[in-house]
Amino acid sequence: MDALLQNPAFRIYAICSVILGVKMLTSAVYTATRRQKTAGFINPEDVTAFASPGTTARVEEAPEVAHALRIQRNDGENIPLFFAIGLIYVLTGASAFGATVLCSLFTVARVAHTFAYTYRKQPARAICFATGLVCTLLMIFRIIINVL
Amino acid sequence: MDALLQNPAFRIYAICSVILGVKMLTSAVYTATRRQKTAGFINPEDVTAFASPGTTARVEEAPEVAHALRIQRNDGENIPLFFAIGLIYVLTGASAFGATVLCSLFTVARVAHTFAYTYRKQPARAICFATGLVCTLLMIFRIIINVL
Amino acid sequence: MDALLQNPAFRIYAICSVILGVKMLTSAVYTATRRQKTAGFINPEDVTAFASPGTTARVEEAPEVAHALRIQRNDGENIPLFFAIGLIYVLTGASAFGATVLCSLFTVARVAHTFAYTYRKQPARAICFATGLVCTLLMIFRIIINVL
Repeated sequence: MDALLQNPAFRIYAICSVILGVKMLTSAVYTATRRQKTAGFINPEDVTAFASPGTTARVEEAPEVAHALRIQRNDGENIPLFFAIGLIYVLTGASAFGATVLCSLFTVARVAHTFAYTYRKQPARAICFATGLVCTLLMIFRIIINVL
Repeated sequence: MDALLQNPAFRIYAICSVILGVKMLTSAVYTATRRQKTAGFINPEDVTAFASPGTTARVEEAPEVAHALRIQRNDGENIPLFFAIGLIYVLTGASAFGATVLCSLFTVARVAHTFAYTYRKQPARAICFATGLVCTLLMIFRIIINVL
Repeated sequence: MDALLQNPAFRIYAICSVILGVKMLTSAVYTATRRQKTAGFINPEDVTAFASPGTTARVEEAPEVAHALRIQRNDGENIPLFFAIGLIYVLTGASAFGATVLCSLFTVARVAHTFAYTYRKQPARAICFATGLVCTLLMIFRIIINVL
């Protein structure tokens, strides 16, 4: 494990994962604030606990909450995949340069994706999504070369 | 790898991950039983294969199935993040004491979260969610100190 | 890390993870093509950027898009769990034989699950899901034996 900590590629991966983790938790809190703001509670027990008197539970998500949930869903399809692929990439001998470029670019792209989704910017959001996808594919390509 | 298996922090992480894995699979089976119980099938092919004659496919999820799916969604936003952050935390030199406290507390909080969600207990569910979030943030904080 | 790359169990895990990663990204692109094909845009900014003139944003997902999203959701409940459990399984001393059988079978089952879901085959889809679940449980069982 000391060897891992000495490995600059692993340190880059660790820092990027931590940034993405904070981003995911921030998105979860953002969804909760949208729910509170719109009183968009689906669970009756949430209405009782958190809503002002007279509020009733919704059957459908409020539009702002659904929008926040789509941000989280898109993260959920991409970031856990990075956690796994990025780690395998580092453990199969990524260079410090390669890990710095691919992990950092993925992280910047996903943080920018959240801003683009929140402020509803297209095609910026699509470009961010595609950038993250290309970074993941390049790491996958490198893993295949290293393992075979 | 023998070094890893000798590391008590890694063993704690492994045991907690296994418990959380079983919990996630149990939640998936719970959702399936709610779907069967309410005949809440969305896919027409599921109606043909699993429902009693005369049942038709639903357009919207049945309320009980939607409730079970929200449990899984909340897990999906938190537990895969723990898998990654917890492993990086251990690989960057977590102490046995720190890993025992943070991984165990996270695991207990997430299992309790499922019970609180299933039996619709608030604010117990919110407290469980926040406890898991604080554990994750503390691991992230420790990773930053260890890596930089 | 050189030791890891020499470990055939880890190499099998890495190759299976890479295949599953490509599968997840393909599913994401599949969903996007269904959205484009049905003009099933939920976000107004997507309508402006990608739809032909006269299209309006939908409130509900189009049925084909919702179907594609269910494929991704089912993957999201199972594949990130494999990434974590499979890695712990390998790091706690999986044999080359065990890893080859369980990781490969899981991967084949999840790829087949996507085809079964896409072409709406039941009970093939349920069998694929159950096969993946059993593989995950067997890895969990082995981890418990190795760690305790």
